[in-house]
Amino acid sequence: MTALTGVGVSPGVGVGPAYVLSYEVVVPSPDARHDGDAAAERARAGAALERVAADLEERGVRAGGEAEGILGAQAMMARDPGLAAEVAQSIDGGAAAARAVYEAFGRYREALAGAGGYLGARVADLDDVRDRAVAVLEGRPLPGVPARAAEPYVLVAHDLAPADTALLSRDVVAAFVTEEGGPTSHTAILARAIGVPAVVACPGATSIAAGTRVLVDGTGGVVRAGPTDGEVAGALAAAAAWGAALAAATGPGATSDGHRVPLLANIGGPRDVAAALEHGAEGVGLYRTEFLFLDRASAPSMEEQEAAYREVLNAFPGGRVVVRTLDAGADKPLAFLPPGGDEPNPALGERGLRLFRTHPEIMDTQLTALARAASGAPSRVEVMAPMVAGVEEAAWFAAACGAAGLPSAGVMVEIPSAALRASDLAATVDFLSLGTNDLAQYAFAADRQVGALAALHDPWQPALLDLVALAAEGAGEHGKPCGVCGEAAADPALACVLVGLGVTSLSMSPPALPAVRAALSRHSREECVLAARAARGTASAAEARAAARSRLPGLAALAL
Amino acid sequence: MTALTGVGVSPGVGVGPAYVLSYEVVVPSPDARHDGDAAAERARAGAALERVAADLEERGVRAGGEAEGILGAQAMMARDPGLAAEVAQSIDGGAAAARAVYEAFGRYREALAGAGGYLGARVADLDDVRDRAVAVLEGRPLPGVPARAAEPYVLVAHDLAPADTALLSRDVVAAFVTEEGGPTSHTAILARAIGVPAVVACPGATSIAAGTRVLVDGTGGVVRAGPTDGEVAGALAAAAAWGAALAAATGPGATSDGHRVPLLANIGGPRDVAAALEHGAEGVGLYRTEFLFLDRASAPSMEEQEAAYREVLNAFPGGRVVVRTLDAGADKPLAFLPPGGDEPNPALGERGLRLFRTHPEIMDTQLTALARAASGAPSRVEVMAPMVAGVEEAAWFAAACGAAGLPSAGVMVEIPSAALRASDLAATVDFLSLGTNDLAQYAFAADRQVGALAALHDPWQPALLDLVALAAEGAGEHGKPCGVCGEAAADPALACVLVGLGVTSLSMSPPALPAVRAALSRHSREECVLAARAARGTASAAEARAAARSRLPGLAALAL
Repeated sequence: MTALTGVGVSPGVGVGPAYVLSYEVVVPSPDARHDGDAAAERARAGAALERVAADLEERGVRAGGEAEGILGAQAMMARDPGLAAEVAQSIDGGAAAARAVYEAFGRYREALAGAGGYLGARVADLDDVRDRAVAVLEGRPLPGVPARAAEPYVLVAHDLAPADTALLSRDVVAAFVTEEGGPTSHTAILARAIGVPAVVACPGATSIAAGTRVLVDGTGGVVRAGPTDGEVAGALAAAAAWGAALAAATGPGATSDGHRVPLLANIGGPRDVAAALEHGAEGVGLYRTEFLFLDRASAPSMEEQEAAYREVLNAFPGGRVVVRTLDAGADKPLAFLPPGGDEPNPALGERGLRLFRTHPEIMDTQLTALARAASGAPSRVEVMAPMVAGVEEAAWFAAACGAAGLPSAGVMVEIPSAALRASDLAATVDFLSLGTNDLAQYAFAADRQVGALAALHDPWQPALLDLVALAAEGAGEHGKPCGVCGEAAADPALACVLVGLGVTSLSMSPPALPAVRAALSRHSREECVLAARAARGTASAAEARAAARSRLPGLAALAL
Repeated sequence: MTALTGVGVSPGVGVGPAYVLSYEVVVPSPDARHDGDAAAERARAGAALERVAADLEERGVRAGGEAEGILGAQAMMARDPGLAAEVAQSIDGGAAAARAVYEAFGRYREALAGAGGYLGARVADLDDVRDRAVAVLEGRPLPGVPARAAEPYVLVAHDLAPADTALLSRDVVAAFVTEEGGPTSHTAILARAIGVPAVVACPGATSIAAGTRVLVDGTGGVVRAGPTDGEVAGALAAAAAWGAALAAATGPGATSDGHRVPLLANIGGPRDVAAALEHGAEGVGLYRTEFLFLDRASAPSMEEQEAAYREVLNAFPGGRVVVRTLDAGADKPLAFLPPGGDEPNPALGERGLRLFRTHPEIMDTQLTALARAASGAPSRVEVMAPMVAGVEEAAWFAAACGAAGLPSAGVMVEIPSAALRASDLAATVDFLSLGTNDLAQYAFAADRQVGALAALHDPWQPALLDLVALAAEGAGEHGKPCGVCGEAAADPALACVLVGLGVTSLSMSPPALPAVRAALSRHSREECVLAARAARGTASAAEARAAARSRLPGLAALAL
């Protein structure tokens, strides 16, 4: 078999037998009847639904981060009382539990998918819950991927959902390969987070036969089924040389001419601190606090929050820790913090700081907990708000931070208007931090969850670079820092370009830090500026990438 | 009662008795049973649902435009076979038809609203269908506003849905007042389209007692319940003087020093041509072609399209007609042009030109129909594509226009990336046209349908002015025109600012043309430039508006 090519989104080389994930929907027979004891059958159905709900919930809690919210919402579907009532009614009519569950979900599904062309969202999540419940009732294994393996496998799929991947680690998976997806897909983010190579947008991958030995080059984006021993040895040797080159770059982030660029970690809670320290993070550039809030009936207490914040602050003596206040709403809904009305487009609705406008008490508790955790901490705490569109919101947030006694208040730049008006924002707050993933979503009006629009999320898009430049320039006018904490910072070549655009710090998944540190250390600030200028001078992402790379000669030496 | 203040979104003065719209949901008793003839009751329920569906559909077709798509989707809900089956099942169990309908909708509603916090979209539309069907079955009038009145009334509501307002005219309604809504709300757009004064974002309005005489000043945004005869006479006299001042400005659009700015009409089909001509439109700046495509099972034939296009082209001899290709998707879904997958955020999904990438045959038919209509027409046809994010899409569209034999291809600038990269776009196509409503939606990541975010849709937001300036400058670099066809062009003061930013033509609802023509005629191009600069020098919409108006002295003389 010749090599397949895709987009390498997590570097390194992985080898292992292919585990090809394919869902086959098993439809219980319409004639399946129970043996006459309706009460027992109802109990069996209820237990199966609860087992599925508990399993999804538990996976979510163990996985944390974005997966926790998505899996929690699926657990809520499995526990829906209206659904249970329909299942019971079917069983009372004689249907077997599996069939009753299948039909009840079918009616929900129809309502979602059929009541209008734009109502179909989340049907896939609903189907996943249904298939799990039916599998439990029929005594089949739950759909999913093996959580243990004698030898780490290469997970090959059309695409991967959070429920598939939430609990995987590098002990189990040697590499990821998907036919769909882009650099900011769930798969890419997870792969970088656990430090496993990944290739996405790789057509034909699922035609690899299960069990075939597969060699995955996550740096070059190449997937080879049935490689020769020589090919495997060569790829592993190249990867080892690459690792050695990366390891040679140590210490604080800086360009070759000594321009300091702090290299920070994106973390989702205290459990991510070890990986950040292991990869040499100088601090935390994005501490997502959602893990404290998701999947519970009420907001966490001030004491619980304070303890979680203090644990991270204590881990980075002399460094800084940038904490993002609760970013709920959109794909991370909270029971105790609902939007004010129906939202046909949740990503354009009341999320992030906007929800605090109607629930300021939740913000105030969080800010007070942060101020208490900061008191006496060995690191510097900086607090920033998500989803800020303009100056009025920024001033409101900065005032609340001041009232809570916090020393530094900033805002995320993830809405185009915030980048356009960065100078106004920088006059109002202490620092800016670019969230390039959401910024691209809005700048190109392209949902991160829609595969057909993935090309628009390429972080090399010149229009996105324009917005980064506007934000960095606006911050610079007021002598304020402007970092990047989106996935763009994890691309070594793009990291150099961001520095050339005026970005003052880079925050990323910890495993990406060594390659970015090495890339920066091999280029001068002037080289970064010229690479950035060349990239902005083009009219497409592919041209921008090529133009920048041709002006960053140190990348080739690192095989980056 | 003292005066209430809101945001004037359609100018002029209206007086009439208040018609206060409030929905009271009538819940059929859970004990309501039919008389035993289930077959007859099922037939009654089916007939009621079909009557509601047909009524919604018919209103949609008569209203056209955006309302047609929304009402068509509601009609589909009423005709859903799954729903009918549930109704029949309840009736077979003895429930009266009204109760059966109420319960069946309830289960759909629960699935939508309850299966996850973000699944609630369109629940309000579903409720409206349910309330209509229950009203028919209980012999009550359908919810809605009177379509006839002895004296035109002032329609007061919390907010107005398309189904409420689609068929109203100035013979029936003297003015609109809503507590919610912004300058781009359904109410504002409708009011300007039919030339009736309107005040939105007016808290307390629904506490006005029904039947109270109300004076509405849609220019100043003031609503007075129980005005004195003197107040009414004064307001009407001022409005008459205003009308006379506007009437004094005639002829093609131009600044006082003769800088030409063609003033064009936004139209939704041949039926809007008369209003455009009546108000002196020099051509059409936005011909929305959705009316041909909505609410049908397959795309219209080339012949049908050609006839509709020719009718408009023939109405503007010597002028130009800018036709926008089909802008489906998001809130205007089409049965024969579905997006490729589930869309959690349809506004960020496959809509506009993006749908043509997977269905090029529909685009090709439309372009060929346009080319055939243009052949021999007395006006110049220019064709533009909606939802263009970048150069690659623009080049693809321009090539298709060229292949169809069309003389001029342009793109809408309604995605931030298109404004940022306007120079690249202008190098590729013949003209740009700013759609300020969607541009604001994406630039501020704020759904136009979410009331809580209405302040972010103020077209005076400095970040939006920045994007307009970037687009106009980018087009100017290549000597290409850049018009505005969003609602921003209908505000006389903002129209002057847009010209100052470099915009080359303005297109709007026809009734807004006289005021814009008058405002332009009283200011030099240099005054417009200085007003634009002053507006962009501020940090909020309110400051921008005030700064610009203080530099546009001619507005006060026109009471604008």
